[in-house]
Amino acid sequence: MATQGQVITCKAAVAWEPNKPLIIEDVQVAPPQAGEVRIQILFTALCHTDAYTWSGKDPEGLFPCILGHEAAGIVESVGEGVTEVKPGDHVIPCYQAECGECKFCKSGKTNLCGKVRSATGVGVMMSDRQSRFSVNGKPIYHFMGTSTFSQYTVVHDVSVAKIDPIAPLDKVCLLGCGVPTGLGAVWNTAKVEAGSIVAVFGLGTVGLAVAEGAKAAGASRIIGIDIDSNKFERAKNFGVTEFINPKEHENPIQQVIVDLTDGGVDYSFECIGNVSVMRAALECCHKGWGTSVIVGVAASGQEISTRPFQLVTGRVWKGTAFGGFKSRSQVPWLVNKYLNKEIKVDEYITHNLTLADINNAFDLMHEGGCLRCVLAMHA
Amino acid sequence: MATQGQVITCKAAVAWEPNKPLIIEDVQVAPPQAGEVRIQILFTALCHTDAYTWSGKDPEGLFPCILGHEAAGIVESVGEGVTEVKPGDHVIPCYQAECGECKFCKSGKTNLCGKVRSATGVGVMMSDRQSRFSVNGKPIYHFMGTSTFSQYTVVHDVSVAKIDPIAPLDKVCLLGCGVPTGLGAVWNTAKVEAGSIVAVFGLGTVGLAVAEGAKAAGASRIIGIDIDSNKFERAKNFGVTEFINPKEHENPIQQVIVDLTDGGVDYSFECIGNVSVMRAALECCHKGWGTSVIVGVAASGQEISTRPFQLVTGRVWKGTAFGGFKSRSQVPWLVNKYLNKEIKVDEYITHNLTLADINNAFDLMHEGGCLRCVLAMHA
Ligand SMILES: NC(=O)c1ccc[n+]([C@@H]2O[C@H](COP(=O)([O-])OP(=O)(O)OC[C@H]3O[C@@H](n4cnc5c(N)ncnc54)[C@H](O)[C@@H]3O)[C@@H](O)[C@H]2O)c1
Ligand SMILES: NC(=O)c1ccc[n+]([C@@H]2O[C@H](COP(=O)([O-])OP(=O)(O)OC[C@H]3O[C@@H](n4cnc5c(N)ncnc54)[C@H](O)[C@@H]3O)[C@@H](O)[C@H]2O)c1
Ligand SMILES: [Zn+2]
Ligand SMILES: [Zn+2]
Ligand SMILES: [Zn+2]
Ligand SMILES: [Zn+2]
Repeated sequence: MATQGQVITCKAAVAWEPNKPLIIEDVQVAPPQAGEVRIQILFTALCHTDAYTWSGKDPEGLFPCILGHEAAGIVESVGEGVTEVKPGDHVIPCYQAECGECKFCKSGKTNLCGKVRSATGVGVMMSDRQSRFSVNGKPIYHFMGTSTFSQYTVVHDVSVAKIDPIAPLDKVCLLGCGVPTGLGAVWNTAKVEAGSIVAVFGLGTVGLAVAEGAKAAGASRIIGIDIDSNKFERAKNFGVTEFINPKEHENPIQQVIVDLTDGGVDYSFECIGNVSVMRAALECCHKGWGTSVIVGVAASGQEISTRPFQLVTGRVWKGTAFGGFKSRSQVPWLVNKYLNKEIKVDEYITHNLTLADINNAFDLMHEGGCLRCVLAMHA
Repeated sequence: MATQGQVITCKAAVAWEPNKPLIIEDVQVAPPQAGEVRIQILFTALCHTDAYTWSGKDPEGLFPCILGHEAAGIVESVGEGVTEVKPGDHVIPCYQAECGECKFCKSGKTNLCGKVRSATGVGVMMSDRQSRFSVNGKPIYHFMGTSTFSQYTVVHDVSVAKIDPIAPLDKVCLLGCGVPTGLGAVWNTAKVEAGSIVAVFGLGTVGLAVAEGAKAAGASRIIGIDIDSNKFERAKNFGVTEFINPKEHENPIQQVIVDLTDGGVDYSFECIGNVSVMRAALECCHKGWGTSVIVGVAASGQEISTRPFQLVTGRVWKGTAFGGFKSRSQVPWLVNKYLNKEIKVDEYITHNLTLADINNAFDLMHEGGCLRCVLAMHA
């Protein structure tokens, strides 16, 4: 390609400061170095982690940066030694890397690869601990190892999932974060069995994907809990069988659920990021075996608590990151499941905008009707 | 037997009031009713749960009562419909019942039988919700469905494990609580695999049984943590390979352990009952898979807490009651393992006294050297 080895100047949404509108800038994107991949991002969605870091509440957030981590695109060029993808491959950038070699990858027990974390955690690339982004010579930090709010981005090769090129990128970009997180929380982390009673707290994208995963696993009852009753109608399409709005009950929600289920649910999922809901989600589980999975991300410094008796009497408290999916090996499998119509994706997309509208897209996230807003990056 | 169907008058240690010395009384023990078993208790040990309720700190403690739940004896007589044991059988009374029929027993997921809980939780028998113990006509509450600080006790048939009569009752009485709790926390609840790194917080009977269980499971390192450095020498015999006294470190103990183990342990066990140690036990676990099991019983009203990020990044928080062992089916199996010299029991017995000395036995529990004190009930 003509651009290979060259700096590319393209549009990107730069977060110069916390909580200030993103600005569409002409950004210089350096060529990929050894072990790196430069990707033309075609579509990106927004997720709450972007909004959280943007808000300034994330103490590890670094500015200026280019946010974004739920996207799809095409490899533009690769650095030295990159063998698993080549220019033209269709890919999903993955904020959870998968190197196959580190202690984590080799454990067989987790998807949390450690290979590039020390760099992605501080907004730079491993090889030289520098950023590949700059605006007029001023470096701009990477975010989550993905930075998909740019027309071109550079990521580590261990963070790129190569997918079937027939998959529509404007849809499967969602398989970069929220949908796999919900499905995997059910399939990989909780391992819900057929006949189980499941409670899902929060009916946004992640909670709906939990419901979808639970339905696929054969759950007999899927109880959706949300403080916004408008969420219920849509949630039925994703498998929710019953709905509870905690605001309509005087008793604590865990008590309401225990009463409704003859002792509690088999599995619960917190998909909000609220520590008191996390407690309720644990405590609505059945004595002896109920398992609660924390999926939502709480604000920094907040703590969960409960009486230890809850655990001594058999409840289990877990959490999940990216639903426990191994990114490079399993995202392509999820794409195939979508192509085979075994999982929903289109149904989570409520809005389509362009990169230029990104600040509107952030505003949309606060509207009850919005699940995922997909931005066309080159429109 | 001559006593069958008769009230038996025998000696028992009665806790008339919280935190006042137990008094050896002549107690009337009514005959077993339908579904009940009267047992001559030959040997009983003391456990911290007895001391906790006796102290008055247990809000569910009822007085006057007969404490005790770690014992062995011989069936004296049985009530109507009891088929699984008969007079003369050697038995261990079990505070965790196992009915085989309730939702819990049938789940295959827990040892927490629900059959008689509504009675044992309030110190009475199921059939008439009365006590079988009285002193001069005044009823005395049962405790944990066992009340083994009496020469004769009455228990529900679902709470009686029949054991091999060649087993020495002055030893296997320990298989009624502490030792199975520790072994089972490792084998049933955590399911420790060979090669694992294990941390054990608290090196009393329960912690040492955890170490023993971990050694049997093939753990590669067993790190014992105790604030009493005198515990280490003895702990080596139970499998502990390294010792840490938190008092000798400036950093929080979880940090000390993470540093020592290249990121944390695979499994940790809290065997103290201290909520801040429970947090440390979780937080010293390895990211991605480390599992922490709460075994110790905290004082009423106390709560555990941590940052949810600990769970989202793959740690798992669990607890165990009676080590997850199904009492009637597995206590006899443990007795056989002891007879085959596959598990230790004798080594946990540091003191032998008689029923008359029971208040001294309670005092001994506060001495660092004491693990289990066994009382001969008819000496
Ligand atoms: N663990 C991971 O890997 C991972 C990945 C992606 C997202 N997340 C997190 O998952 C969470 C959910 O993401 P989303 O995109 O679905 O969010 P969302 O905002 O679309 O959905 C949250 C839902 O919770 C409801 N809600 C808010 N407060 C509530 C309460 N007190 N009780 C009941 N319902 C309440 C809202 O009405 C909304 O429907 C976020 O915290 C996000 O950061 C985690
Ligand atoms: N879950 C169950 O089914 C079950 C069954 C039996 C006992 N238990 C509980 O297990 C716990 C342990 O029982 P045990 O008989 O072994 O008790 P123990 O008192 O003999 O042992 C406790 C040990 O912890 C040490 N310790 C105290 N505070 C400490 C601290 N802050 N840091 C490190 N070490 C500390 C003590 O020095 C002692 O060696 C108790 O809470 C008991 O009630 C639970
Ligand atoms: Zn996300
Ligand atoms: Zn790795
Ligand atoms: Zn006990
Ligand atoms: Zn039962």
